[in-house]
Amino acid sequence: MATDRPIPTVPAVDGNRLWDSLTAMAALGATAKGGCRRVAFTDEDRRGRDLFRSWCEVEGLRVSVDVFGNMFARRPGRSNLPPVLVGSHLDTQPTGGRFDGVYGVLAGLELVRTLNAAGIMTERPIEIVNWTNEEGAIYRSMMGSEVFTGALALEEALALVDLDGRRLGDALDAIGYRGTAGLWSYPVHCYFEAHIEQGPVLEAHGTTIGVVTDGIAFRRYAITIEGREAHAGPTPMALRRDAMVTAAALIGATHAHALEVEGARATFGYLKAHPGVPNTLAGRVEMSADLRHREDEMLDGLEERLAADLQRVCAEQGTSATLRRVVTSPRVRFHPALRRRVAEAAQALGYSREEIVSGAGHDACNIARRIPAAMIFIPCKDGISHNEAESAEPADCEAGCNVLLHAVLAAANDTTALEAAP
Amino acid sequence: MATDRPIPTVPAVDGNRLWDSLTAMAALGATAKGGCRRVAFTDEDRRGRDLFRSWCEVEGLRVSVDVFGNMFARRPGRSNLPPVLVGSHLDTQPTGGRFDGVYGVLAGLELVRTLNAAGIMTERPIEIVNWTNEEGAIYRSMMGSEVFTGALALEEALALVDLDGRRLGDALDAIGYRGTAGLWSYPVHCYFEAHIEQGPVLEAHGTTIGVVTDGIAFRRYAITIEGREAHAGPTPMALRRDAMVTAAALIGATHAHALEVEGARATFGYLKAHPGVPNTLAGRVEMSADLRHREDEMLDGLEERLAADLQRVCAEQGTSATLRRVVTSPRVRFHPALRRRVAEAAQALGYSREEIVSGAGHDACNIARRIPAAMIFIPCKDGISHNEAESAEPADCEAGCNVLLHAVLAAANDTTALEAAP
Ligand SMILES: [Zn+2]
Ligand SMILES: [Zn+2]
Repeated sequence: MATDRPIPTVPAVDGNRLWDSLTAMAALGATAKGGCRRVAFTDEDRRGRDLFRSWCEVEGLRVSVDVFGNMFARRPGRSNLPPVLVGSHLDTQPTGGRFDGVYGVLAGLELVRTLNAAGIMTERPIEIVNWTNEEGAIYRSMMGSEVFTGALALEEALALVDLDGRRLGDALDAIGYRGTAGLWSYPVHCYFEAHIEQGPVLEAHGTTIGVVTDGIAFRRYAITIEGREAHAGPTPMALRRDAMVTAAALIGATHAHALEVEGARATFGYLKAHPGVPNTLAGRVEMSADLRHREDEMLDGLEERLAADLQRVCAEQGTSATLRRVVTSPRVRFHPALRRRVAEAAQALGYSREEIVSGAGHDACNIARRIPAAMIFIPCKDGISHNEAESAEPADCEAGCNVLLHAVLAAANDTTALEAAP
Repeated sequence: MATDRPIPTVPAVDGNRLWDSLTAMAALGATAKGGCRRVAFTDEDRRGRDLFRSWCEVEGLRVSVDVFGNMFARRPGRSNLPPVLVGSHLDTQPTGGRFDGVYGVLAGLELVRTLNAAGIMTERPIEIVNWTNEEGAIYRSMMGSEVFTGALALEEALALVDLDGRRLGDALDAIGYRGTAGLWSYPVHCYFEAHIEQGPVLEAHGTTIGVVTDGIAFRRYAITIEGREAHAGPTPMALRRDAMVTAAALIGATHAHALEVEGARATFGYLKAHPGVPNTLAGRVEMSADLRHREDEMLDGLEERLAADLQRVCAEQGTSATLRRVVTSPRVRFHPALRRRVAEAAQALGYSREEIVSGAGHDACNIARRIPAAMIFIPCKDGISHNEAESAEPADCEAGCNVLLHAVLAAANDTTALEAAP
């Protein structure tokens, strides 16, 4: 049974201090449009890491860096039990924002500062983590947590090369963040990640706190439609085999179906027509499809429907097509007990909350496949992310950080292990 | 009234000789896949012109080159009446075929060779013409006939620059084909152009000769759809403003409408989505639309419908759009009396024939806006053109040339002027 002690009166986090830290970090790689360019393995990444390290050291935390560059800043507990991890990533998209990832790391820092200032000690240690290369701007995404959990082998990751032919291992050396700590070299109790929603739901509902239940299951497809290239003028409609019309019909059908299926998401973000000139009808279209649903079984159904719709529209247009699944990401379940801690913290603090599914991938999704994990979302303006216009309200940042503080405190004072989720 | 003399027994053209000439010309700029690369203003263009000139001189024709490089090879008539022009273009697309344009010029040459061999003299002179830069591979298309008819000012044309910054006048100098003859410096009786159909209709119907009634009216549009860029994962379907889905709905609606309207053609050959990545829904789509119909008034209707459909699909998807017409090409009517000559020749020679609309632009369309003109189409394999796989049957080439011979002979022996068409 849990040995929950009554939580002592917890001081609230300092919203201004948190905001000042976000602002100071945003200055490293600041863009003209108010965004941030702090791409993994660049000098801006190094400067961001250095600043974070210095802040941690001021708080008396011991900072270690593992062999893949993941940073861990440890605040000791009364016991030497497995720690509570809390964090996210400091790297950004090439034209990214000031909150994606950064918020989760600096919210972790702010809760430690709050505990320090109040002289509150926890049973378990707390570690703030900054995962390497979450945005995948140069290599693939969410690599730090993938390597940490073993989903991607360290040697394979270090041997990857970027567009300039530079090995990832060398890239880490270049910024001085190829550490010596082993990967997951000691047990971890659980993981929390606070993040902007990167979607419009909380804002649309006027909700402050999103209690994330699942990481959505998603699959990505490469589709090639073959028609017959022909001159737009001399080719009557009835004699055409138009790859673009086929693609449009597929998009229309899939979009309509996704609207009907509760929780389904279908996106066609990339489309290239060949030869791609106004007076020639497309002989070939290459396009992407991205299907998502919280439930893997529902995603099976969406995939079957996509394949059937593709076959049907090809038959109608006299074209042919191939559909190839190129990415498969199963559903991730966040831990019920940790979700409850987040919900209870929001409740106790008087913030509005709702359950929400994470539609994007996060380091927390990698971690949750191995140990209990949870995520807290706060609203972001217009749902915009991966964009210099990315924006969040100071009050929401403070609220999310307060919820994080209470949830982490509860977990760090619970000396029993969490059971694996069903 | 026409002073038609009874046509003397006309020998048929020599199909093998015509085919041999097509083959010899195809060797200049021959591509590995059996096509042709004889782009205007290149050394291949020069060599093609030189070969054509030498063949004409062997036939005793006087070759002149005008100030825009258009070549005229004149066979004298009994009288000095305005000549009958017959021709097309020797230049090709960068990866073009062996027939587009070339066929019309060499069919003109073959008919002159046939008349010479048979010792047949005509009342009017006959001139074979090779128009400069029909394909527009470097500058704009159909320039030779545009400059000849005054639709494009000579000075403006000569001052245009290519991607390397080379002036068109200098490009003509470089290949030695900037001539001294004036533009349209004497009256012309009429113009005939034989051409492969560049579409699938004749082949599909099993017809040998296309009697071209009109150059289709067409308009081209640039469309920009603005939605809201967002992450494919966290953005529920109901909260999306997806520019790609809007574009797909427009393509679907316009395609369906064009199928319903007899003779209408709608093509969306170019589409670019921004940012164009699989996991982000498109915030902006730029695309082309190409609408065609024989009747300008029907095209007005298609345009209105396109604008209305665009407005409707934008309203449905919460997006906005602009529609800008960038090309306007009104209907061209080929001359009824010349069309009749073509039909009568096909009839007399026992070839199957049908009336057909030219869906593509041709030099004949420019000429027809000023003087009586006609076109003869022959089938091409699978309707493929502007492609190295472009192909036509020797028998069809011969048939089209025989029809051209009879039609030109009839016109060249008609000493009365043609009335302007209604
Ligand atoms: Zn992130
Ligand atoms: Zn042509």
